[in-house]
Amino acid sequence: MIVEMVTGVNVEQVDGVVQRAKSMGFQVQLNLGTEKTVVAILGGNTGQLPTETFAVLPGVESVTRIMKPYKLASREFKATDSVVSCGGVKVGGKGFVVMAGPCAVESEEQLMEVARAVKGSGASILRGGAFKPRTSPFSFQGLEEAGLKLLARAKKTYGIPVVTEVVDPHEVSLVAKYADILQIGSRNMQNFALLTSVGKSNCPVLLKRGFSCTVTEWLTAADYLLAEGNNKVMLCERGIRTFEDSIRFSLDISSIPVLKRASHLPVIVDPSHAAGHYALVPAIAKAALAAGADGILIEVHPNPKEALVDGLQSLSTSDFARLMKELKPIAEAVGRHI
Amino acid sequence: MIVEMVTGVNVEQVDGVVQRAKSMGFQVQLNLGTEKTVVAILGGNTGQLPTETFAVLPGVESVTRIMKPYKLASREFKATDSVVSCGGVKVGGKGFVVMAGPCAVESEEQLMEVARAVKGSGASILRGGAFKPRTSPFSFQGLEEAGLKLLARAKKTYGIPVVTEVVDPHEVSLVAKYADILQIGSRNMQNFALLTSVGKSNCPVLLKRGFSCTVTEWLTAADYLLAEGNNKVMLCERGIRTFEDSIRFSLDISSIPVLKRASHLPVIVDPSHAAGHYALVPAIAKAALAAGADGILIEVHPNPKEALVDGLQSLSTSDFARLMKELKPIAEAVGRHI
Amino acid sequence: MIVEMVTGVNVEQVDGVVQRAKSMGFQVQLNLGTEKTVVAILGGNTGQLPTETFAVLPGVESVTRIMKPYKLASREFKATDSVVSCGGVKVGGKGFVVMAGPCAVESEEQLMEVARAVKGSGASILRGGAFKPRTSPFSFQGLEEAGLKLLARAKKTYGIPVVTEVVDPHEVSLVAKYADILQIGSRNMQNFALLTSVGKSNCPVLLKRGFSCTVTEWLTAADYLLAEGNNKVMLCERGIRTFEDSIRFSLDISSIPVLKRASHLPVIVDPSHAAGHYALVPAIAKAALAAGADGILIEVHPNPKEALVDGLQSLSTSDFARLMKELKPIAEAVGRHI
Amino acid sequence: MIVEMVTGVNVEQVDGVVQRAKSMGFQVQLNLGTEKTVVAILGGNTGQLPTETFAVLPGVESVTRIMKPYKLASREFKATDSVVSCGGVKVGGKGFVVMAGPCAVESEEQLMEVARAVKGSGASILRGGAFKPRTSPFSFQGLEEAGLKLLARAKKTYGIPVVTEVVDPHEVSLVAKYADILQIGSRNMQNFALLTSVGKSNCPVLLKRGFSCTVTEWLTAADYLLAEGNNKVMLCERGIRTFEDSIRFSLDISSIPVLKRASHLPVIVDPSHAAGHYALVPAIAKAALAAGADGILIEVHPNPKEALVDGLQSLSTSDFARLMKELKPIAEAVGRHI
Repeated sequence: MIVEMVTGVNVEQVDGVVQRAKSMGFQVQLNLGTEKTVVAILGGNTGQLPTETFAVLPGVESVTRIMKPYKLASREFKATDSVVSCGGVKVGGKGFVVMAGPCAVESEEQLMEVARAVKGSGASILRGGAFKPRTSPFSFQGLEEAGLKLLARAKKTYGIPVVTEVVDPHEVSLVAKYADILQIGSRNMQNFALLTSVGKSNCPVLLKRGFSCTVTEWLTAADYLLAEGNNKVMLCERGIRTFEDSIRFSLDISSIPVLKRASHLPVIVDPSHAAGHYALVPAIAKAALAAGADGILIEVHPNPKEALVDGLQSLSTSDFARLMKELKPIAEAVGRHI
Repeated sequence: MIVEMVTGVNVEQVDGVVQRAKSMGFQVQLNLGTEKTVVAILGGNTGQLPTETFAVLPGVESVTRIMKPYKLASREFKATDSVVSCGGVKVGGKGFVVMAGPCAVESEEQLMEVARAVKGSGASILRGGAFKPRTSPFSFQGLEEAGLKLLARAKKTYGIPVVTEVVDPHEVSLVAKYADILQIGSRNMQNFALLTSVGKSNCPVLLKRGFSCTVTEWLTAADYLLAEGNNKVMLCERGIRTFEDSIRFSLDISSIPVLKRASHLPVIVDPSHAAGHYALVPAIAKAALAAGADGILIEVHPNPKEALVDGLQSLSTSDFARLMKELKPIAEAVGRHI
Repeated sequence: MIVEMVTGVNVEQVDGVVQRAKSMGFQVQLNLGTEKTVVAILGGNTGQLPTETFAVLPGVESVTRIMKPYKLASREFKATDSVVSCGGVKVGGKGFVVMAGPCAVESEEQLMEVARAVKGSGASILRGGAFKPRTSPFSFQGLEEAGLKLLARAKKTYGIPVVTEVVDPHEVSLVAKYADILQIGSRNMQNFALLTSVGKSNCPVLLKRGFSCTVTEWLTAADYLLAEGNNKVMLCERGIRTFEDSIRFSLDISSIPVLKRASHLPVIVDPSHAAGHYALVPAIAKAALAAGADGILIEVHPNPKEALVDGLQSLSTSDFARLMKELKPIAEAVGRHI
Repeated sequence: MIVEMVTGVNVEQVDGVVQRAKSMGFQVQLNLGTEKTVVAILGGNTGQLPTETFAVLPGVESVTRIMKPYKLASREFKATDSVVSCGGVKVGGKGFVVMAGPCAVESEEQLMEVARAVKGSGASILRGGAFKPRTSPFSFQGLEEAGLKLLARAKKTYGIPVVTEVVDPHEVSLVAKYADILQIGSRNMQNFALLTSVGKSNCPVLLKRGFSCTVTEWLTAADYLLAEGNNKVMLCERGIRTFEDSIRFSLDISSIPVLKRASHLPVIVDPSHAAGHYALVPAIAKAALAAGADGILIEVHPNPKEALVDGLQSLSTSDFARLMKELKPIAEAVGRHI
């Protein structure tokens, strides 16, 4: 942690910083520049220390963190890529994992039709929402436990693991009874009550990025899960909020190489929620694969025109089949397989 | 709702839109322009209808909502300003309400000292966090119920109502037992499980704006609370995330006149969380008052240098006393009183 | 253009809107909804009409544009992809065009070394800056005309066309004397004096996206060039400014499919300026190719550690050679060639 | 400048950083932490040094600037507030300066009517655009030199200095012949050819903030002007681009106290361009005054409904008169006068 003192700082003020650091067990080194005095505070845990500890002291101009605020999610903590096993499917290895299915589970017929189709086209995990966090109280909120039961049936029938969202800290064990992967939605990335509860389960978890959270905040949220003992954490980039209005969220393609350098956790990309429109989904899916993502999460609906939720961003089953065909040669070109 | 068809649309495609609208009970009017065909869909509830209902149909280029997605929070629904009574203090009337106190309740001594000081300087509501949502799992998480009990004691001793945050849908009744106002934090603005639970209580609620949510999304979240029957809703602007890095969050000063036109709900401003630095707090507080806010929420700590949470953004009790003195003539100049 | 009237509008106010529209030669259609009156204004040129023409009238709540503000750059104006010939290299066809070279031309030796290397690895256009717009007045500003002359020499020696930036409307003919493509930088995307001047030349132009401009504004800026008669316009996505701080600019990968739907103009991607760091460049370059871009613009330096400008984002010549090898199979996988 | 080395760095890599720093005449201090090696580079000019100088070296993880990249605009360079005299009106002192007038000069009649009205209501500077940078090539572009002549006439008739925009580096002396203040528009804040040209004139200049530029970039652009010898620089906050869509640009109210701490230059606020709608202008104007701005720039039109440019954001002359009456008691409350 680097503490820059104001121009014209006096000795007592510098000493105040030094004493506070020493009282906390840190080492200190002074840089007496010609124009600025800078205090370097050294030690293994300065990443988790709030910068405010020093910023509030008199004579301090700014405090810069050198160590990152996350630890367990970092590649410095674990150098090799983590591979998470989800109901038998490995995420984070050489395979490029396609998770596909409807935004919301609507009926047995709908879910079974999609499950059969996406499995047939090469998807290895089935997605489907039972508890839906909706921005308007007047919208369809999901089938809840009945939806979970349908997912379990589809899983058994087609032999495909399922991922579904959990929204309430008190429903984690209920959802984990049916699901192979618990999804934490974008709006809940910093719902710490939920993170703690999911961290205590032993179920693989797909942590979606908060649509306005930095990569650093995202990895710090992952640390919440990891710190509770759940190390089956996967990250899911799903677009960030920007000024651009031609798309619902701007997919942050560079988060893929950034995460691959900073963290050992697998990275999944959700083109559907970012795009908000089916016509943009294939281009983003291909880009994610080429950029090094470990998988994608795609919305597929047997009849997008009649979907209760997010039909506009869903691929039809035939569009999805075509996309899978187009992804395969790209996967090969980058040394992966689907 | 306005549905624009693509150039070269055919009759069947236009008819598809018309039929879907009619099947849902809406009236339809066709605009056959020289270059574009546009279908207007009319009726009282088109604001709550997802634009996708039509956007997924063949031949549709774009769909524009004319009615807003929120209803109960709108000034069209209720023309006169709502005034919320919080433990005897009226928020939303002629008075400019100052809510002040520490970010986190740390000890009886700390809380009592601040409560006495802020009450003495003219604050009419005491703030203090017992459950703290922290971005890092390694940070201080609050005193929890012990903190609520200290707040109740301060309230009794100094005759000042209290506002405190609730983070878990299953703790709403616990917190409401002690608090006069339930605060919903920025990261929970779209935690719909929490909104529904708070909406079912009858306790006044301060809904902080999600730091990346639009005013429209914020008022739609307020509709969640109002739809459950709780009409004691107050809004709190606390800064939005932008590219600017000289401040923690950019306070959206224009949200004040925007909300005053669009909604009947009282508007509070939190300069402390936006600023992230005590030196910026007074200027923002004065701006909020001049722009028409109904109150402010300010962090005050007896010894900011030793605060466990957010000390850098806290005013000392003497800085707070000075700010209160500076606010009074401005309040008078804009026809209000403190 | 759709004009929504306020709730409770009176007949005179509606008539005011109708009369203004008719006086401008537009057709009008009234939608008298149960809650809202909406006036549709129809005609071929409503896209270029400011929404304010109606928004200022009494009784108007909002005005929504249906037609886009740009015209000549749109796919509705020209359905087939434009192919721009630049010194014999076709941009916008089946080929994926790689433009590579140093950020700034520093010396003959540096430029020749890079030109030979990038040409040898398969680049078909040489980039190099002679006039550098720098954010600080204390930074290196470029070799100016001497730099242009070196570019001309490299072009002659290696038979490779060159792209270079122009920053002053009065230097367009000077730069066009040496360059095969004029580049308009991000900070000048809305420098209308410059756009007009470049539009009057007949030289191919690479219009970089303003780092905070929407796709709509970008295509409207392209209309400035096209309206002056220069139809050799290429677009260059180079990242947008967002809150994310792990990268210099967030590359807007979805702008590629968005542009391909909305416009007939070729799309180039600049991973180097977006990334700001060489380690992130290859992943973004591959993503751009997979997503459907027509080419990339890459910074290459013989010795990035000693570059006067932007060394950190430059690939070394050997890193560039490796990237070219990795791009080729991806190009094949998506039906293109390099 | 603080150079953080990667974990596991070797001695040669650290030495590479040290040698480069020493070769440039800087002092170096090493911090050998338990987990990280950090090199502090000290000396008076490290603010103007690109961070890349060190970031490209092997073994470097990140480089953090301690000194700001601007110098002449900083309060460290000049501790006391600058006061700029503009045709006899002092900007930056105790007075709160109101600059008002039409967005574009349209005719003698229009300009004279506004000039008389705003002067009568207490404005001390007349604004009016003669050269208009418009986002669409099909929009009204201004009266150009004829507009400047009308401004000169209004100035003479009513004894009020004028501010007007310059857009082309080759027109600076033409505009300076008529104007008391040269305005540099938001889209030209980083048009370095223009900044250099205006910096060479001796005319007061109002530098509008680029709508997506940080405060640091803005002050660095001011350094361009100051470095050329023009020290009559005033800054103008006019809103930044964010995700919020209820307003055209989000006025960054906190930039006022941030600038007042960081710089000695006067700060003006333009509520009209930020708001985009007249109904939001008064609240923002009052907030700017309360927050410590030195003046405002307001659009006023005798008949906003007929304005050729930006009518929606213009106040009528009577609305402006009312605003001036409301501002006066607030000015008094904060110790200023209008």
